[in-house]
Formats: sequence, C-alpha cells, structure tokens
Amino acid sequence: MDDKGFLYQQLADELGDKIRSGDLGVGEKLPSLRGLHRKLGVSIGTVYQAYTELESKGLVEARPKSGYYVKSAKVLSLPVPGYVKRSSNPSRVHISAILSDVVNASLNPNLVPLGASTLSLDLFPYKHLKRILGGISPMRMKRLIQYPPAEGDPELRRRIAMRLLGIAPHVRPDDVVITNGCMEALSLSMLALTSPGDVVAVESPAFFGALQLFRELGLKAMEVPTNPRYGVDVEALEAVLDRHPVKACLFTPNYHNPLGALMPDDRKQDLVELLNRRGIPLVEDDIYAELHFTPQRPSLLKTYDQKDLVITCSSVSKVLAPGFRVGWLVVGERFRERLSRLKSGFNMATSSIEQYVCSQFLGDGAFDRFLRSLRRTVEKQVHETAVAIQQYFPKGCKLAPPQGGNVLWVELPPKVDGYRLYNSAMENGISIVPGGAFSTTRRYDHYVRISSTAPFDDRIRDGIKILGDLAEREMGAEENKAA
Amino acid sequence: MDDKGFLYQQLADELGDKIRSGDLGVGEKLPSLRGLHRKLGVSIGTVYQAYTELESKGLVEARPKSGYYVKSAKVLSLPVPGYVKRSSNPSRVHISAILSDVVNASLNPNLVPLGASTLSLDLFPYKHLKRILGGISPMRMKRLIQYPPAEGDPELRRRIAMRLLGIAPHVRPDDVVITNGCMEALSLSMLALTSPGDVVAVESPAFFGALQLFRELGLKAMEVPTNPRYGVDVEALEAVLDRHPVKACLFTPNYHNPLGALMPDDRKQDLVELLNRRGIPLVEDDIYAELHFTPQRPSLLKTYDQKDLVITCSSVSKVLAPGFRVGWLVVGERFRERLSRLKSGFNMATSSIEQYVCSQFLGDGAFDRFLRSLRRTVEKQVHETAVAIQQYFPKGCKLAPPQGGNVLWVELPPKVDGYRLYNSAMENGISIVPGGAFSTTRRYDHYVRISSTAPFDDRIRDGIKILGDLAEREMGAEENKAA
Repeated sequence: MDDKGFLYQQLADELGDKIRSGDLGVGEKLPSLRGLHRKLGVSIGTVYQAYTELESKGLVEARPKSGYYVKSAKVLSLPVPGYVKRSSNPSRVHISAILSDVVNASLNPNLVPLGASTLSLDLFPYKHLKRILGGISPMRMKRLIQYPPAEGDPELRRRIAMRLLGIAPHVRPDDVVITNGCMEALSLSMLALTSPGDVVAVESPAFFGALQLFRELGLKAMEVPTNPRYGVDVEALEAVLDRHPVKACLFTPNYHNPLGALMPDDRKQDLVELLNRRGIPLVEDDIYAELHFTPQRPSLLKTYDQKDLVITCSSVSKVLAPGFRVGWLVVGERFRERLSRLKSGFNMATSSIEQYVCSQFLGDGAFDRFLRSLRRTVEKQVHETAVAIQQYFPKGCKLAPPQGGNVLWVELPPKVDGYRLYNSAMENGISIVPGGAFSTTRRYDHYVRISSTAPFDDRIRDGIKILGDLAEREMGAEENKAA
Repeated sequence: MDDKGFLYQQLADELGDKIRSGDLGVGEKLPSLRGLHRKLGVSIGTVYQAYTELESKGLVEARPKSGYYVKSAKVLSLPVPGYVKRSSNPSRVHISAILSDVVNASLNPNLVPLGASTLSLDLFPYKHLKRILGGISPMRMKRLIQYPPAEGDPELRRRIAMRLLGIAPHVRPDDVVITNGCMEALSLSMLALTSPGDVVAVESPAFFGALQLFRELGLKAMEVPTNPRYGVDVEALEAVLDRHPVKACLFTPNYHNPLGALMPDDRKQDLVELLNRRGIPLVEDDIYAELHFTPQRPSLLKTYDQKDLVITCSSVSKVLAPGFRVGWLVVGERFRERLSRLKSGFNMATSSIEQYVCSQFLGDGAFDRFLRSLRRTVEKQVHETAVAIQQYFPKGCKLAPPQGGNVLWVELPPKVDGYRLYNSAMENGISIVPGGAFSTTRRYDHYVRISSTAPFDDRIRDGIKILGDLAEREMGAEENKAA
C-alpha cells in the first residue's frame, strides 16, 4: 500500500477527531484550502480531498463562496458507558430462550434492521461474485467437486497470509487453516484448547455466539472487565488469572462486538506479554478488523506473540458474503497439527466452491478496491446512526464513539430494561439486540446493541426515533411504578 | 417410482444370483427369450432387457444365432472372510501416523486408484452442476450471500425428506438438518450424545473416519463382532451391552465401509428393537445407500425406530460431489433441538451455494436418472474388480461379494501384512488402504480395502495383478523367514 495515497485521509482523520472532541466547535469555519496548504506543506488537492471526505461523513458542510464549516447536528458528545472493574466468578453459561428469536429477528428483512451484526446484502459485491461463479470452466468444476484439502485451498491460504504482511510478518500460508466460517475457527480452537468444565476468559460483555459455544462445549465463562473504548482491562485480567484456573482466553481486540472497542497497540502488547508469561493460550476473534475507519488495519494480538500461543480467527462474513461460510485460523506450529486433525476429523474440509470464489476475489485487486469504498460507507452510516441515537434517545444514555465495525453499544438509563425495549421494538417492526444477550450476568440488562447495517435513511432515522420514544416511555413507566 | 419399470431388473437380479451362487454353471445356456416369456408371463422385451443387463455386467454373453450363455471368468467364488465372535474391550483410539498418508494417497490422481472410497470424478455430473451454477441470477446470488438458516435450505430439506418416502415414512422436512458433509453429521451427533471418556459401540472393522472422530472427542471405541455379509452381530452386541456402559452406537447398516455388508431387514429390526429396549441412542451412517445394486434402496435403521432414538446421517459425497460438503442428519424430536443448537453454535450454517446446487439437482428428476445409470456402472466395475482379485491374488484370499457401495474387503493369508502390502503397493504407484486402519485391534492386519473407483480398464487390471504378485511375494518372504 502507498502511504502517500492516504495523506488526505490522515488529514481528514485529524480534523474529524478535533470536531468530535469539540476542539473545533459547531459552526466554526475550517481553514481555507490555500491556508492549510501553506501551513502544512501539502498540496491544495490533498486538503480539498480531506474536506470532501469530512463532508461525505456529514461532519462539515461547504458554504458557497465562503468555505467549509463544522455542521452542528453531527457531533457526537454522548458520554462513554462506564464499566465495572470488579470481576464476577466463572460461570456455566445459561442462555435465554429468546436468543434464537433475537438472531432470527436480526435477519428478518421486514424489520428495520438495527439488530444484525452483518451489513445489508446490498453493500456486498454479489454481482462480481456471481460473475466469478459463472466463469468456472468445466475442468475447474471437475476439480471443485473433489474433496478440498482439509486445511483448505492452497491459493486461498496464500492470499490470506499475504494480507497479513506488515501486520504479522511471520505468518506463512502453511499457518492458515480454512474453516467453515469464523465461528468454526473459534469452535475448533476451543475444542483443541479446553475440556468440558474448563474456565475460559472473555470480555464483559462478550459476543453471544462465543457464550453459546461455551454452553455447547460445557465450558465456564470468566467475564473480564472491559473498557468500552480500549478493550479488555489487562490489570483486571491479571487479577483474574491469580484467582482462577483460566485454561484459555478468547478476546476480540479489534472493534469488539458489541462494544466497538479497539485495543491500542500498547495494551495489546501488555495483554499478550501477560498471557505469554503465564503460558496461557489466547484465541483472538479478528472478524471486524477490515472494517477500520483509520487508514491502516489495526495490528493483531498475534503481532505481539513471542511464544506461539495466539490463534487468530477470522472470516469473510462481515466484508464479503456471510452465507459463504469461509473463515480461517492463523495458527503456529504449537497448535497446528492438533487443529488440522480436528478440522479433518470434524467435517473433513470446507466447501470448495466458496473457497474458490473467495480466492479469486481476494486475488485480483477487486477486494481491496471494494473494501476501501465499503469502509467509507460504513463509517458514514455508523456515525449518522450514532448521531441519531444521541438526538432521539432519552437523557442519560451513553455511547462510545465507534472506531470501526458496525455495532453501537448503548447504555440506557438504569431503569430501562433492554429485553423489554427489544420486545416493544419488535412490536413496532424494529430489530435490536438486548444487552443481556452478551453476558452470563445481569450487568447489561439496561443496555442494547444497535447495529448500523445499511446506509442511513428515513426508515432508519424513524426506527431510531421510535426506539427513543419507547425507551422514554419505559422510563416513565418505571417512575410511575416507583411512585 | 414405477415398480413395473424394474421388472427386468428383478429378473436380472434373480438370474445374477443364480450365476454367482453356481446354480447356473459356467458355459450353461440361459432359457431363450421366448421360453422365459412364456414361463414367467413377462414380455419378451423385459426378458431381453434383463439379459442385456446381465451382459453389461459381464455375467453372460450373447452368442450369435444361439442365445445367451454364462461367461466363465466372471463368476465370484472366493470364500467370504470369517469373523471373530469374541468382542474385545472398549479402547481409547490411537491412530497410526500413516493414516493421513493413506488418505492423501487415496486422493492422489497419479496412483492407480484402489484406495479412495469415493468414485472417480469422471463419474460425477459436474457439467450439469456447473450449468446450475452458471444459471444463478443476480437476485438469487444476493440471497445466497446471506446466512442460510442454521438447519439448512428449506427446499433442500424438503427434497431430502421426500427421498425417504416409503423408506422412513414419518420423516418430515423439519426432521432434516443440513450439515457440512456426513462427517459433520456424525460429529455433531457424537457431541450431542456423548462426553469424553464414554464408550461408543461400532462395527469391527469400522470406518476409520469414525475412529478418528472418537479419538478427537476422547471417546472409547467398543468394536462389536460384525458379519462381513450381514453386518453387526446383534447377539454379540447384546452381550457387549450387558458388560459395558455403552453410551451410544454408530453403525453403517447399508454397504458398510470397509465390509460392503448389507444388514437384512430382520436383522435391522432386531438391532433397533434391542437398542430401543435399552434406551440407547443409535447413529446410522447411510452414506452408501444410494449405491444399491438391487432395484430398491435398502431400508434404514430409522425405519424400525419406535422410540425416536435413531439419528440417520448421510451426504452427497459418494454420489454427486465430495467437495461440496453437503450432508444431513435425519433426527426426530428427542434430539432435534440439541442438534440444531450444536450446528448453529459450532459453525452457524452450511455453505449456501452448494446447498442451492444440490437442491436444484435433487429437484428436477436429473438426480434419479443420473443415479440409475451410476448404479449400473458401479455394480459392473465393482464386480469386475472383484473377479480380477479372485484371478490374481494368491490362494487363501477371501472376499465377500459386495451388495452395494464400491469397496471390497479382502482377507489375505495370515502371513501377509496389510501395512507392508500398502507400502510396496505405494512403491509400485498403487493406492490401497491397509486393514489395520479400520480397527483399534490388530485383528485386521492381514486385510486390505480395495476400492473400485473407476470403470474397469487395463490400468486397474494391471494394478490388481501387481498387488497379487506383491502379496504372493510377501507370503514367500514370510515362509523363507519361518524356514
């Protein structure tokens, strides 16, 4: 990647941060193109591109014959949700019976789509993928009906390893094992590292799919206090490790679901050093990393791994085609043989056609072009969704500005119950996910996860407005009850 | 299916049995077309079709202006391998390190293909499948990139249930759960029914994939004596159940791999009644059932299940496209919820495109037409392979005439070691599977599995001749050693 090509992006990011933090106030005029060109020594074109970028995000507006101004309505100023630094105890996972309803609702196209963690199908390059399918020759097809290698299509493995160049430079194609989606990568890792009854540390809150998996495998979840902006609290984790026999960890350092948190590099390093020191295996879920709003994709926990104890799991589900079920493990020598054997023993291999289509799409440059445009779209719609929440939700709500991915973790006033809000949202044709789904505790009962799955439009604005009204009503109902 | 359409087939089968059993001797003349037409009251066309069928299998030959005669070289007269009726003890599974070499060799196209349990790719309708792929519309593609339902594509589930009409009449589409191949169906069933350390009863010998799975899940294999023609010995199983805490059973009643055994209906019924009485869950692997040499597909163990304790597992891997990884579970209410949850928890769903292609191919009648022709091809090549083994292998070899499927279980003279034969076969560019791969015991060290993967030709004949020579040499070497 050419760093110079991103100069405008860096400038846009810096200005964006200043606007979001309030350093550049609402209505304030930005420096003129020529002024900034002189001051920073960058070309006028670069400044212009940065301003256009900020405009496309709705942060600034161009006023004819005057210049660029900070727009009022788009500034996020909600407080960030707090977090409890006290750990609970390891706990068997019991999952609410409504979870499968929640998941089904999140995929129901008739509801206002604020529940799914995957993007609207319209944002994916399905026509391009169809063309690749259509171009399969009879001889290729004959090869595709044969069992693929258990570890996956060699070309796809090579291309996935190549994408990690500069991020985890030691990763070779042999380190990549293709799985049936990221979920299977997590499942095989847990099967490889744990036995029923073992304790596994996760963030609090945690991705409900991980909790569901723990239940199926009879594992105990140890929820570790997690900062809604910076990810898992390394000190709190250390205290947990002192008290509980943690067999493995499962963390999502990049754009955590549901928090949206991104661990800064120094925290990632601290985390991995701690676990390396104690010899504890660490599984990282990297599924959202490609949806970064910064110019570069974030580092991995594996980047800092000195002891070959980190297994990285990801897939194309969030950025290409959820239904393809193409994911992967990145795994070093320590666990590779065991994981290959588990993959082959469990279901022999991952479906061949989707592997081929992904390998083609990843190979021809189309993926990177597509991702660049997708990221801009997602950042814009996520920001607009967050601003609408700020505008329409009752006072006392909190929200961490998302740094990537497409989910928003909203803390409601303590009186508002997330499950009740979910139910009344469903009655109004809107899908969301109640916060309780993300924990074995009751800590997040007054939270909800709201996803930005599609470009912001009136339907979504109206959905959020209705949600806000419903939350307000819940508050009132509670106050009346108390009175 | 129209029963009348199979009259010729029934006649061909009856005559074929008489030839194989020796009732109709080599060189003997078959009744004339007109004679049999009068005697049986069937049309001359039906008799002609039956004779043509026998001719295509190489059992009879037409002599111009004379009639049809039993051909000499094609009669199978090898004794059936015996079996030990004494059970061993439940045993942790340790799998020979060479197993993955064996599996890789069986897929290596440069070797004479007597090792794979799947058919040659040339026998599969890949051009037709490619046409289905090519016909996917953009709107269809958009739907295909969405997460499929965890239980699978509703249309495919319906079509699979329909295929069991008349076999297991109570099976509804809701009872079918799509999995990533038959292997995943077995894996999820074992995860649902057992915990590490549990004892699972299997045939002796057993499919090595099942043994591999047991090892990965920490299960103990209880090998139950199994008749090479009629499948698992129900009395022996009863004795086993009295002595060991068997948690679940995994049997392959239809064309067992590696035995080729078909359980007769009354034995199936006895087996299921025994396990129903004791409340023990039974997983049946039905993957070879569509490769039947008789006119009708055989019944299921599920056919006789009164207590909803049988889970049936199968896939398209042996009859359509191994690389598609499309399989299924047929499961009643008792275990359905647990299995759906496991499927969704483990890898969310099976890849969408292969599900769609299978659903289309199963739906339009092409599948049945294709299967009818495939079965004839496979029966012919399997029979010719068996006859070649009889011709070229040393005296003392045994072989049960296969009744379906495409694998042949060959008992060598006790002095010949299957692993050594495998190694020398590999040196000569031929893949086979040593018998030891199918057991936790040493009982099958002088067996090999020889597959008929492709239409019989000179390459395969030469391969079998070389194998026979190698086996002969091994015998001599052993005798010299002993002397």
